[in-house]
Amino acid sequence: MTEPQTVAVLGLGMIGGSVARGLATQGMNVVGYDINSSYLDDAVAEGVVSTRLSARLDDLCGADSVVIAVYGDAAVEMLGLLAPHAHLLNLVTDVGSTKRTIVAAAEKSPLSKCFVGAHPFAGDHRSGWGASRFDLFEKETVYICPTGSSTRESVEAASVLWSALGAKLVKMDAAEHDDLLAWTSHLPHVVSTALALALADAGIVHRQLGRGGRDVTRLAAGSPDVWTAITMDNAAAIETALDAIERQCGEFRMLLKDANRQAVREKLTRARDWSGPQDR
Amino acid sequence: MTEPQTVAVLGLGMIGGSVARGLATQGMNVVGYDINSSYLDDAVAEGVVSTRLSARLDDLCGADSVVIAVYGDAAVEMLGLLAPHAHLLNLVTDVGSTKRTIVAAAEKSPLSKCFVGAHPFAGDHRSGWGASRFDLFEKETVYICPTGSSTRESVEAASVLWSALGAKLVKMDAAEHDDLLAWTSHLPHVVSTALALALADAGIVHRQLGRGGRDVTRLAAGSPDVWTAITMDNAAAIETALDAIERQCGEFRMLLKDANRQAVREKLTRARDWSGPQDR
Repeated sequence: MTEPQTVAVLGLGMIGGSVARGLATQGMNVVGYDINSSYLDDAVAEGVVSTRLSARLDDLCGADSVVIAVYGDAAVEMLGLLAPHAHLLNLVTDVGSTKRTIVAAAEKSPLSKCFVGAHPFAGDHRSGWGASRFDLFEKETVYICPTGSSTRESVEAASVLWSALGAKLVKMDAAEHDDLLAWTSHLPHVVSTALALALADAGIVHRQLGRGGRDVTRLAAGSPDVWTAITMDNAAAIETALDAIERQCGEFRMLLKDANRQAVREKLTRARDWSGPQDR
Repeated sequence: MTEPQTVAVLGLGMIGGSVARGLATQGMNVVGYDINSSYLDDAVAEGVVSTRLSARLDDLCGADSVVIAVYGDAAVEMLGLLAPHAHLLNLVTDVGSTKRTIVAAAEKSPLSKCFVGAHPFAGDHRSGWGASRFDLFEKETVYICPTGSSTRESVEAASVLWSALGAKLVKMDAAEHDDLLAWTSHLPHVVSTALALALADAGIVHRQLGRGGRDVTRLAAGSPDVWTAITMDNAAAIETALDAIERQCGEFRMLLKDANRQAVREKLTRARDWSGPQDR
């Protein structure tokens, strides 16, 4: 069993910050970097990060495991900066919400053997170091997506690291992951966004919502940068899912137009049965 | 100032039960009825309701104010049962989520002077006496929709009653209320339902969702009976709102198809700005 001693965490927002806090709580030595120097200052001041890494990552300060906790293109760029250190590394993992692109990029890089993609299915619409907490991953699902060349040792190291943070691990092919998350995560986000925009265009302001409307639009408050990267990266699968929601809304609209009370009730009942307490 | 002494609460589900608890906490004598005898038994056993009313309401046991807390057609039927008592009543109010139909029905009844429609914009997807609590309306909005014939005294009595429960009152014409709520309440509910159905059809089960997906689908767990009544009663306004959400989803889908990163980011940013913390 490979237990990381020094771990580098690259990116100290809500997710990366929570990884750093969780690992430090487990007694590990955490070294780190963030482009936002105030996050890095706070992480060092709070004793979570022991050593600052440079933006070019020319020295990993003894880390044999790395968690990339930046998003989209920036995550792929990190692979390039880490490549020269490949011989020193047991594990490179990440936290991105889409896995196909980063796993494919890692597979073509000198990191192909030690890279094991990960997607912690946790967090909310908030962001930044201030939103991080040591137990963010406790009992939450983390999807583990190896490359075609990940070694057994690197997959084991990824399992140890994420399990140490309290997560439930689900191993899955990267493409399969992205097709699943298009429905379970990306579609809810885009639907929440579409609702916020429809309300905005109708002249509704947020404080006019009740608890229900606040729940349904909550995700729309998420980071535009993060969600632009996610939706562009998984565009085809999200298009299919959006097509399905448009059809559902259209069907409901036609049933109202036809005053088809029985069919409206059936739809509401089927949705209730799917989401009801028996399933929670 | 007219302060009700004995109030009849008809329907002891989450909303009616919370009205009864709140008024009892304020020292009022609450008499009540529910078609579900276990709700009524519990309300009496807990000392919230002092006296059981009969299903036909042939004796209101001294009540000069009535809160109708049943939904849809059942609420309109209650107006008929209350009509013979009109000369004894200072106030009849209700809790329905749509106001046009019930206010119009009251206006044509012997209760036209003492009826003042109300819609407490509170509660969640749960239902039943067990979900009721004395402070459910604390700091929540209650829309007040008089008939064309409501007396000044009855409007004042409605304000006193709902204010006693801690609510913030917003007085509004019934038609204006229904057009507003189509956006702020009914559309979020139908969108949540449509999302649940799209996920169900894609073979997703509820436990595969993360926190975000659970938030967006939470409303779909609401009572099919209650929401059939609401959506049928306000169908035309909801059709307009559904059309807007279909267009938003379609636009997002086309931007993904065109790989228009800039326009995707603009939509996400506009939605974030609308729903962001500065507005909460």
